[in-house]
Formats: sequence, C-alpha cells, structure tokens
Amino acid sequence: MSARILDGTRIAKEIREKLAPRVQTFAARHGRPPGLGIVLVGDDPGSEIYVRNKLRAAAEVGIRADLERLPATATLDETLRLIDRLNGSSAHDGVLVQSPLPAAMGEDAEQTVFDAIDPAKDVDGFHPVNVGRLVQKRDALVPGTPRGVIELIDHAGIVVAGARAVVIGRSDIVGKPVAMLLLHRNATVTICHSKTRDLAAVAAQADILVAAIGRAAFVTRGFVKPGATVIDVGITCVTDPAAARAIFPPGHPRLADFDKRGSVVVGDVHPEVAEVAGALTPVPGGVGPLTIAMLLTNTVKAAEARSA
Amino acid sequence: MSARILDGTRIAKEIREKLAPRVQTFAARHGRPPGLGIVLVGDDPGSEIYVRNKLRAAAEVGIRADLERLPATATLDETLRLIDRLNGSSAHDGVLVQSPLPAAMGEDAEQTVFDAIDPAKDVDGFHPVNVGRLVQKRDALVPGTPRGVIELIDHAGIVVAGARAVVIGRSDIVGKPVAMLLLHRNATVTICHSKTRDLAAVAAQADILVAAIGRAAFVTRGFVKPGATVIDVGITCVTDPAAARAIFPPGHPRLADFDKRGSVVVGDVHPEVAEVAGALTPVPGGVGPLTIAMLLTNTVKAAEARSA
Repeated sequence: MSARILDGTRIAKEIREKLAPRVQTFAARHGRPPGLGIVLVGDDPGSEIYVRNKLRAAAEVGIRADLERLPATATLDETLRLIDRLNGSSAHDGVLVQSPLPAAMGEDAEQTVFDAIDPAKDVDGFHPVNVGRLVQKRDALVPGTPRGVIELIDHAGIVVAGARAVVIGRSDIVGKPVAMLLLHRNATVTICHSKTRDLAAVAAQADILVAAIGRAAFVTRGFVKPGATVIDVGITCVTDPAAARAIFPPGHPRLADFDKRGSVVVGDVHPEVAEVAGALTPVPGGVGPLTIAMLLTNTVKAAEARSA
Repeated sequence: MSARILDGTRIAKEIREKLAPRVQTFAARHGRPPGLGIVLVGDDPGSEIYVRNKLRAAAEVGIRADLERLPATATLDETLRLIDRLNGSSAHDGVLVQSPLPAAMGEDAEQTVFDAIDPAKDVDGFHPVNVGRLVQKRDALVPGTPRGVIELIDHAGIVVAGARAVVIGRSDIVGKPVAMLLLHRNATVTICHSKTRDLAAVAAQADILVAAIGRAAFVTRGFVKPGATVIDVGITCVTDPAAARAIFPPGHPRLADFDKRGSVVVGDVHPEVAEVAGALTPVPGGVGPLTIAMLLTNTVKAAEARSA
C-alpha cells in the first residue's frame, strides 16, 4: 500500500486562480488593487527567500505588495513607527512583519510588533484579537499555515467531523490554531508535544495526524495508524550526509538530490510513512505552498472587509 | 476503593483569606477598595442567585461590588452605554455582565456586550483580547471556572505535566480555556464533545478528566480510568423524581434531600464514579465556589494592574 499524495502545489494554484478575479473585481470597484505591506528587518537569508516568494505570489494574482526594509540595526521604535504608517495607509489592507526579528531587538520584540498591527490588517493572524476570535469561532484573520492544512484536508475530501485528530506541536502559529480549526469542524482533537508520554501510541490513534514539531523525519511508521491522513507541516534543511542517509534508503531519488546539492529539505514525517498512511502531504510541495496562498486570501479578505 | 473528595468550598475559603490582605493593601495605598461593577439585565431567577453570591463574596473580602440593574426591556444600546460608563469609572476595576441577557436583545447581543468591556477590566475573561492572550500563554484575565479547575488540581497536589487530560465539552467559557491551561502545564490534552465517537473509551484514557457538558450524571463508571482525577464542572438542577431515582440508589442521602426539597443539584459525573476515581470534585461544593473566588482574584489583579 502506498499513500495518496496530497499535492499542495496544485491546490495552491487553484486557490490563486480563484483569487485573481476577486482581486480584479476589487481593483475595478476601488480603483486600486488590494495592498500588502511586508516589513523585513535585517538580512536573514531565510527571510529573504520567504519574502521574495510572498512578493512574487502576490504579484501573480494582482495584489500590490510593498517590501519595506529596515536595517538589522533598526530599533524597536523605528519598527513600530513603520507599522504605524502601514496601519494608517489607505493603500495597504494587510501588514505583516517577517519573522524572525534581529535578536538584538530583544526577546519580546516580536510579540510587541505583532500586537502593534491593526487587527483588521493582521493578515498573519498573530494579534491576540484574531487569536481570540478564532478560538471563539468568529470571523477572524487566521494564520496561513493552519488554514492551509484545512484546505489540503478539504480538497482531499477527507471527513473531519467525528474523526480523531492528533496535532503534534503546540506553537501559536501552527499547533494551537490548527487544533482549534479541527475542533470547530467537529474532530476530537488531541494536542501532543515534547512532554507527551508514549507519543507514538497517542499519534497512532489519529485518523488525521498533523506533524508540526520541526524535527526532520521524526514521525515514523509506528506513529501512524494504517490508512490515516498525515499532514506534514515541518520543513528542515538537512545538510549532514549521515542524517540524510539515515532518513532516505540507498538509491532514493531525494538522496541523489542531496548528493548533487549538499542539502535536502525534509518534513517532520519520515518517508517510510508513505507505506502506511492513507494520504500524505509531501515536503516540499505540501503545506508550504498553501501557506502563501492563504496569506494572499487573507489580504483580499482584509481588503474587502475594510472597504465594505 | 473510594475517591478522595476535593473540597472546593475549603479551597475557595483559603483563596479568599489570602485575598483579603491584598485587598487591604490596595485600599490603604489607593484610598479606595478594588471595585467591581456587575451588570444585571432583566430578572432571570438563576441570575439573581448568582449575582447575590458574587456580591456577598466580594463584600466578604473587602471588594466594593456595585450591582447595576437594567430592566428586561432595556435595549442593547442602553446596556452598552452602561458598560461604557463602568469602563470609564475610576472606582471600578472589574466589569462583568451577568449571562444570559434577555432573549429579546438578539442572538449576538451577549458577544457584542462582552466585546465592549475594556479588556483591562474584563474580569470574566470573555473579551477576544483576553482569550487570545490566554492561548498565547501571556498574562491575561482568565475566566473563573477554568482557573478554578486548575486551582483544585494544584491544591490536591495532582501532577499535570505529562498527564493525559481529557476535557469533555468545548465551550468558550470552560472547555476551550481549561484545555489551554492544562496544555500550558504540559498535559497531553484531548477535547471531546457531542460529535466524539466512543466518548467513554476516549475519556477512559484520561489521568485527569474534566466534565463540562451540562448533562446530569452523564459521566458514568465506564468513562473513568481507575485512579483518575475527575473534575466535575456541571451543575444541573434535577426536579424529575424518576431522573433523581435513576441517578441515586435507594437510601442515598442526596435522594432524601430530593424528597424533602423536590429538587437536587447534580453534576456531569455520576455518583458511582466515586468508586473508581482516585480524586473527585463534589457537586455542589467543588468547582462552583472556586469560580467566584477566581472572579474576586481577577478583580484584585485588574485593580493592581490598573494602578501599577
């Protein structure tokens, strides 16, 4: 048996294709496209890639996306002033600050900055008002990754109501919100984490298993009930040859990739799970593309709500 | 075997006794006691009892509590104006609106009213900002009942970290926040509800079982792992003699109470669970008294924070 692969790239494309006419309608009605302001502080190489992908995806559907850069030496106050300007800008319906902020800004800087974003423009859904409204099952801007997980499950026609769902990971960005979204769709939801005992046995009760812990290939065959749907949120770049060889068997095409590039992107789910799961999201090409598609959806939603 | 009974009345008394000197210190420093404004719209008999209990408990610890009444014919606007006045009042550190509002006010009135309370004075913890901050594990005003559940567990010396906790019920007021509080204390948490399949089997995995569904004596022996801690949040007033006799065996003292008064207060947990559980909260006298104690604690906390 081999799992059905849930193609996030294809679904993200469908979502963008449905979004484009909404963007056009908005632009025709308001004389401007929906606008997204992206704040990038410093020069983290990973952030550069993420931001570039967001800018490109926005442009593809006709959303205006402006990159606002601050140097790595910027202060928290300068960052807050920039957010304030974007909050007040009539051209920007969405505002996001690319994580992480420079460490020099202090430990609480990120939450301070997220709190400063107008909740109506908070397209990343990190403001407590949006977190609270999500928990209360009210209209809210919901973070892109958990929304993407639900889109993948829905597009695959997997029944959530009555299912046992297990979420491994309890981050504010993925674990907790995805647990709430599954709960609101009537799954019986268990949240696991680093302190969970017998994690594999708990996970193996799941009809729907969401892995969001950020540990490469952590979820092995023993974590998965045969036939379960497995959603892999993790993205780890493996550069250690021994680690890569421990994950992929000799002759595996991903191992050939590794030998060519010196690195390979691996999810939280071990490749052997494909032999047990009923459905499985690949990494890359699973949840990742959905995250950006849902960010764009949030931007259009915020634009429509702001001008309604 | 017979479960250890977790005496909420005693613990609530301890909490109030610790609170009284904090109230005195505040009053000495600020020339006024912490103040709580309670809004009661209409004349629901249950609400009258709840409000009276809150007023009395506040007075006992030295908190000033003012009851602000509106007639059952009051409009939503009138209610919002009253909240606005209490939000602006320097004598009131906490504001709460007794639920339920008159049905005539409309379906969304309650959330509209809760949203209107200044989050810094939201001692019931129903404002989305406080819900969001709770989920984010930040300082927040947390609803009294879930906070009371945690106090009961802590006072009993029950270890939460690593335990499997199952919460039956997913309300905004109890189920979801208690799940979050248990998660933040490193329990592995499962949230069950009316759509959960094999509910008894799922519940029986719990080391800590929280019943918050509002169905009298619903949780029977088969739901409980021997030795588990069972927290009973339900309060149902049973007036049907057949129902009372189905719950309590002949000769049970609670049945004698029923025969005397024509009603008996029953929790979500069946009395037979006392023979299986390791620890159990009674109804009445378990979670109930804690709810009000935590409301008072929130009021003092809000007062201290506002004047800090």
